[in-house]
Amino acid sequence: MAKQNTPNDKSAGGKRNSKKRYYTYRKVNKKPSLQPPKAKESVRVAFLGGMNEIGKNMTVYEYKEDMFILDCGIAFPGDELPGVDLVIPDFTYIEKNISKIRGLIITHGHEDHIGGIAYLLKKVNIPIYATKLTIGLIKGKLKEHGLLESAKLVEIKPHDNITLGSFNIELIHVNHSIPDAVGLAIRCPAGILIHTGDFKIDTTPVDGDMIDLTRFAEYGKKGVLALFQDSTNAERPGYTMSEKTVGESFVNLFRKAGKRRIVVATFASNIHRVQQIIDVAQQSKRKVAVIGRSLENLVQVGEELGYLNVPKNILINIDNIKNYEDEHLVIITTGSQGEPMSALTKMAFGEHRKVVVSPNDYVIISATPIPGNEKMVGNVVNELMKRGIEVIYEKMYEVHVSGHACQEELKLMMGIIKPKFFIPVHGEQKHLQKHALLAQSMGFSKESIYIGTIGNHIEISEDGIKDIDTVPSGEVYVDGIGVGDVGNIVLNDRKHLSQDGLIVVVATINTYTGEIESGPDIVSRGFVYVRENEDLMNSARELACRIIEETYDSKYHDWNTVKGKLRDEISHLMYEKTKRSPMILPVLMEI
Amino acid sequence: MAKQNTPNDKSAGGKRNSKKRYYTYRKVNKKPSLQPPKAKESVRVAFLGGMNEIGKNMTVYEYKEDMFILDCGIAFPGDELPGVDLVIPDFTYIEKNISKIRGLIITHGHEDHIGGIAYLLKKVNIPIYATKLTIGLIKGKLKEHGLLESAKLVEIKPHDNITLGSFNIELIHVNHSIPDAVGLAIRCPAGILIHTGDFKIDTTPVDGDMIDLTRFAEYGKKGVLALFQDSTNAERPGYTMSEKTVGESFVNLFRKAGKRRIVVATFASNIHRVQQIIDVAQQSKRKVAVIGRSLENLVQVGEELGYLNVPKNILINIDNIKNYEDEHLVIITTGSQGEPMSALTKMAFGEHRKVVVSPNDYVIISATPIPGNEKMVGNVVNELMKRGIEVIYEKMYEVHVSGHACQEELKLMMGIIKPKFFIPVHGEQKHLQKHALLAQSMGFSKESIYIGTIGNHIEISEDGIKDIDTVPSGEVYVDGIGVGDVGNIVLNDRKHLSQDGLIVVVATINTYTGEIESGPDIVSRGFVYVRENEDLMNSARELACRIIEETYDSKYHDWNTVKGKLRDEISHLMYEKTKRSPMILPVLMEI
Repeated sequence: MAKQNTPNDKSAGGKRNSKKRYYTYRKVNKKPSLQPPKAKESVRVAFLGGMNEIGKNMTVYEYKEDMFILDCGIAFPGDELPGVDLVIPDFTYIEKNISKIRGLIITHGHEDHIGGIAYLLKKVNIPIYATKLTIGLIKGKLKEHGLLESAKLVEIKPHDNITLGSFNIELIHVNHSIPDAVGLAIRCPAGILIHTGDFKIDTTPVDGDMIDLTRFAEYGKKGVLALFQDSTNAERPGYTMSEKTVGESFVNLFRKAGKRRIVVATFASNIHRVQQIIDVAQQSKRKVAVIGRSLENLVQVGEELGYLNVPKNILINIDNIKNYEDEHLVIITTGSQGEPMSALTKMAFGEHRKVVVSPNDYVIISATPIPGNEKMVGNVVNELMKRGIEVIYEKMYEVHVSGHACQEELKLMMGIIKPKFFIPVHGEQKHLQKHALLAQSMGFSKESIYIGTIGNHIEISEDGIKDIDTVPSGEVYVDGIGVGDVGNIVLNDRKHLSQDGLIVVVATINTYTGEIESGPDIVSRGFVYVRENEDLMNSARELACRIIEETYDSKYHDWNTVKGKLRDEISHLMYEKTKRSPMILPVLMEI
Repeated sequence: MAKQNTPNDKSAGGKRNSKKRYYTYRKVNKKPSLQPPKAKESVRVAFLGGMNEIGKNMTVYEYKEDMFILDCGIAFPGDELPGVDLVIPDFTYIEKNISKIRGLIITHGHEDHIGGIAYLLKKVNIPIYATKLTIGLIKGKLKEHGLLESAKLVEIKPHDNITLGSFNIELIHVNHSIPDAVGLAIRCPAGILIHTGDFKIDTTPVDGDMIDLTRFAEYGKKGVLALFQDSTNAERPGYTMSEKTVGESFVNLFRKAGKRRIVVATFASNIHRVQQIIDVAQQSKRKVAVIGRSLENLVQVGEELGYLNVPKNILINIDNIKNYEDEHLVIITTGSQGEPMSALTKMAFGEHRKVVVSPNDYVIISATPIPGNEKMVGNVVNELMKRGIEVIYEKMYEVHVSGHACQEELKLMMGIIKPKFFIPVHGEQKHLQKHALLAQSMGFSKESIYIGTIGNHIEISEDGIKDIDTVPSGEVYVDGIGVGDVGNIVLNDRKHLSQDGLIVVVATINTYTGEIESGPDIVSRGFVYVRENEDLMNSARELACRIIEETYDSKYHDWNTVKGKLRDEISHLMYEKTKRSPMILPVLMEI
C-alpha cells in the first residue's frame, strides 16, 4: 500500500470539504486572524469492551460520518464469573452505527486484542487491517469459526497509511512481547491522535527492530492533539528490561541444568522468548519439543511467516522424547500461569499422559503471575518441588521481562510526543490514576488529562475533552457456544449453588382431591452427605408434607404460594439446623 | 509459675529414670566412654493440620508416653473449596492418643494458631497454656462456642517453664505482628528442640520489647538438637522493617491528608498498628472510630488487658462520626484484603450503611495482599479511585511491614541457635525449600535438614531424623455448623454446579401401566435464560419422554437404568447444543 495523504502532502489540505475529507495539517505560526474564531473541529472516541481495563479490548474513533474500530479482544474472567469461558465486548453501538464503520485496525496478535474478531464478524463483516504476523494469528481464529473465506483481511506494514473515510492512519512500529506490534498516528481534520497500543521501549530487541521513536517524535514536532498511552506498568518505576536479558539468563540456567532435562513454561504468544529458548537449546545441543495447542500453533505460524528461525532437525515431536537422553532435551510448555488444565499443571500433579517429571528435570517458569493467578502458580511450584524438582520461578534469575513500558519509558514517550491532551488507557483505574500523576509530574495540567471509564463517549477538540454521553459497552459473556445467554441471574444462581448446593423438593399432587399422590421427595446436591444426615432430610420431608397439605386444606391456594412457602420454610429449617442456605427448588407435579 | 527444672538445675539430671522424667542436660566435654554406645534417646513429632503450610496450624511433640500439642489453628479456604467457611486440623491422631496428651501450648493469638481450639475442646478438654493477650483472645472464641466455663486456661509468661510429663518447656519472647508472641525451648531426655513460632526480629518494637535473642543464644550454647523455624518469608532477602517505620509513615500521611477524613484499613489482629494509628490521630487532633467486629473485639480486649493504650475520649462510636468534621476523624476498618463482606469493600462499592466515602476521604490500606487476594484488593482500590478518592496502597510509603523474619533474620537465628538438625516449618513447599537452601548456605549439610509434609511423623535423635509413618492429618472442612460433613463429593458437586448449573428432569410414572402420568418437567438453574431457550427445553422434554416410554416398553427396566439414560442422553443433547455440561438430576416419582 502506497503512502497517501501524509501530513507532508500539502495538496491534501485543500480537500478539506471535498467528499473525501483527508487530514489537514495544523497551521502553526500563522498570524492571528481578526475574524472571530470558528468552532473547532472535533473527533469522538467511544470506549467499548474490556472488563476492568478501559480502551484495551475495543475502542471506536469517530469523525462526523466516519468511524473505525481499534482492536477487538477478549478478557478472561475469574471466579467472579463462574463457568464463563470468555468475555467479549458489547457490539450494540457498532451495530447501531454499521453504516459509518469503515474498518477494524488491530495493533497486535494477543488475545485481548484479536480474540473477539470472530464474534464481531458474525455481526458485521468489515475489512480488517493488521500486520503480517497478526493476520496470521487472526486467520487461525477465523478458521476455527469457519469465517476465513468470507473475511476481508488487509495486510499492512509499519509506515503504511490507511485511509478510512476522513481518517488517515499511519502505523508505527513498537516493541512488545509479540513481534509485529504497532501504534497508531490517527489523522483527521480535528488533529492528530497518537495511540501507542501495548508497547515497551526495547533498545536491544531480539529481532533487532527497535520501536520507531523517530516517527513518534516527528508527530510530536508537528503537534499532537491527544495521546492514548498504555498504562499497564504505570505503577512500576524505572525501565522494563530488554527481552535479550532473558536470553542471557537462559544461557546460565541451561548450564546449571547440567545433565537434567529442561522444561520451560512461558506465554504461548511470546515468539521472541521461544526463539531465545530454541537458540540456547541449539547451542547446548538439546532438541526441543513443544507442548500445548496454543504454543504449537504459534511455532507453526511463526515459522511459516518467518518470525521464528528454527534450525533444521531441532524440533521433535513430544511422542519422541523417549528416544533422547534428558540432557539432550528441552520441553517448551504452556501453563506458566498455573492454569488447571495446562500441560505444566498436569505434569506437576503427575497427570500428564506424555511427560512424567522427576528430580532429573529442571523447570523454568519464564513468566510472572498475572494478578489473580499467584496462588495457582504457587501451587504448581509447590507440587513440582514436592517431586524433588528444582524450579526457577518469579523474580529469580530474570527469566521474564514485561512487554509493557515502565514509568521512565512512559515519560519519555510523553516527552517526545508532547500532546495537548493526555488519555491514559489500557489499565485498571489505579493504573490510569498513577499514569495521570506521572503526566502531571511532566507538567501536564490536571485539565489536560482525561481518565475515562468503559462506556464513556468523548469529544476531543483543541478546546478540550468533554463527555458526550455513554454508549452500551462492557461485558458480554461467552459460555460454550452461547453468546450473551448467561447473565446476572444465571451467574448468581451458579454462585449460590457453589456455596451451599441445592435441595430439590418434588411432590405429585392430585388436583381433584388435593392429596399428595407421591413424595414429597427430597434430593440434594452439593449440600451435605445425605447418608450421614438422614434425620435432617426426614425433617425436611415432613415439613414439605405439612406445608402442601395445609395449603391445600385452606381455601386460598395456588401453585406459586405453595412453592414460595416450601422455599421459605425449608430454607429456614436448613439454616437453623446447619447454618447454611442451599438453594431450594420445589417442583410440584399435577395429575 | 515458678521456674523449675531449667537446664541449669543440675539436680534434675539424676531423675532421668524416675517416674517424672525431667530434662537432662547434654554431657558436653565428657571424656569418651569405652562402653559401647547406648541407643540414643529420641523425640517424635507429628505434623497435623494446615492446608499447604506444614507445622503451622498444629504440631504434636511426643516423648515415650507423653505428648503435647503446639497451636491449634484454622486455615481459610479459597475458591477451591466453595462454600467452606474454614478448615480445621484433623483430630483423629489426638483422639487416638488422648491418654498421652498433657496439654496444648499456643504461641500467639492469630486465627491460624487459635482458631481451631473450640473444635478441639469439644473432643478433648485438655489444659491450654498461653500468654495473657493470647488467653484473652482465646476466651472470646470459647465464649462464642459456649466453652468458656469448662475450659482449663493457664496463663503463662515468657521465661516460665511448663512441665508436661517428660517435657519441660520454656517460653521465649519473640516479635511478631501481634503482641505476646512466644517461641519455645522444648527440653526432654532426647535433647533440646527450639520452635521459633511466627517471628521477626524487631530492634525497635512499638512496645519496646525486643525478641529475647539472648535466651535463644544461651540455648544455642548449651546445644540444640533441632530447630523448627518460621519459613513464611524465606523467599525474601534482607531484613523485615521495624513496625515503627509504619508509624513514621502515618505521621507523614496524616499531614498529607490535610482536611480530609482518613480511613485506614488493616489486619484486625495487629494491635501495634492500631496503637500507632491512635497515637498519630491523637497528635493530629483526630477522633478514632473503629469498624468491623474483629477490630472492635481486638480494641476491647487489647485495652482491657493493657496492650493498647487509648487516650481518654479519643474513641468514638461509628454512629457519631456525623458530629465531627472530616478533618477531625480517622476511621479504622477491616477489609485490607478486599474481602467481599468487609467494611472497606462495602464503602468502596457504596454499600456501607454507616460510612459514605467521597473525594474528601483519604484511604490508607495498611497491609499487603495475601497471595490469592491481589485481585480483590485491586478491585477495591479501583472502586475507591473511581469515586475520586486518593488511595495509598501496596508498597507506597511503607504503610505495612511483615510480621515474619526475612532471610537475614532467619540466618541470624540459625547462627545463634546452631542446631544439629534444621527443620523449616510454617510455609508452603517453595518456602521450605528456599529456607533449606539458606540453611545450606550457612553450612548445614543436606542430611541435617528435614523438609516434611503434613501428616509426616518423624523421630529425632542425635543420630538423625527418620520418618516413622504418617498420621491422619490435614483438612477437615467446617461449613456453617457442620464439621466434616462436607467432603470431596459434595465439593465436586458444588464446583460442577457453579460451572454450568443444573437441569432437573421430573416425571410421575404409573407403576402399573408404565405410563407417564405427569411431566416430564424440565427445571433449570444457573444454566441459560430459559425464556430465550424454550426450544432447547422442549427438545430436552421430548427426549426425556421418549427415554422413559422406551425403557418402560422394553422388558428390562429399573429406576436406575432410566435415570442413567436420562442423565447421559440429556447431558449429551445439552453439550451438543450449547457446549456446556450442566448437572442433570433426574427425579422419577411413582404412583
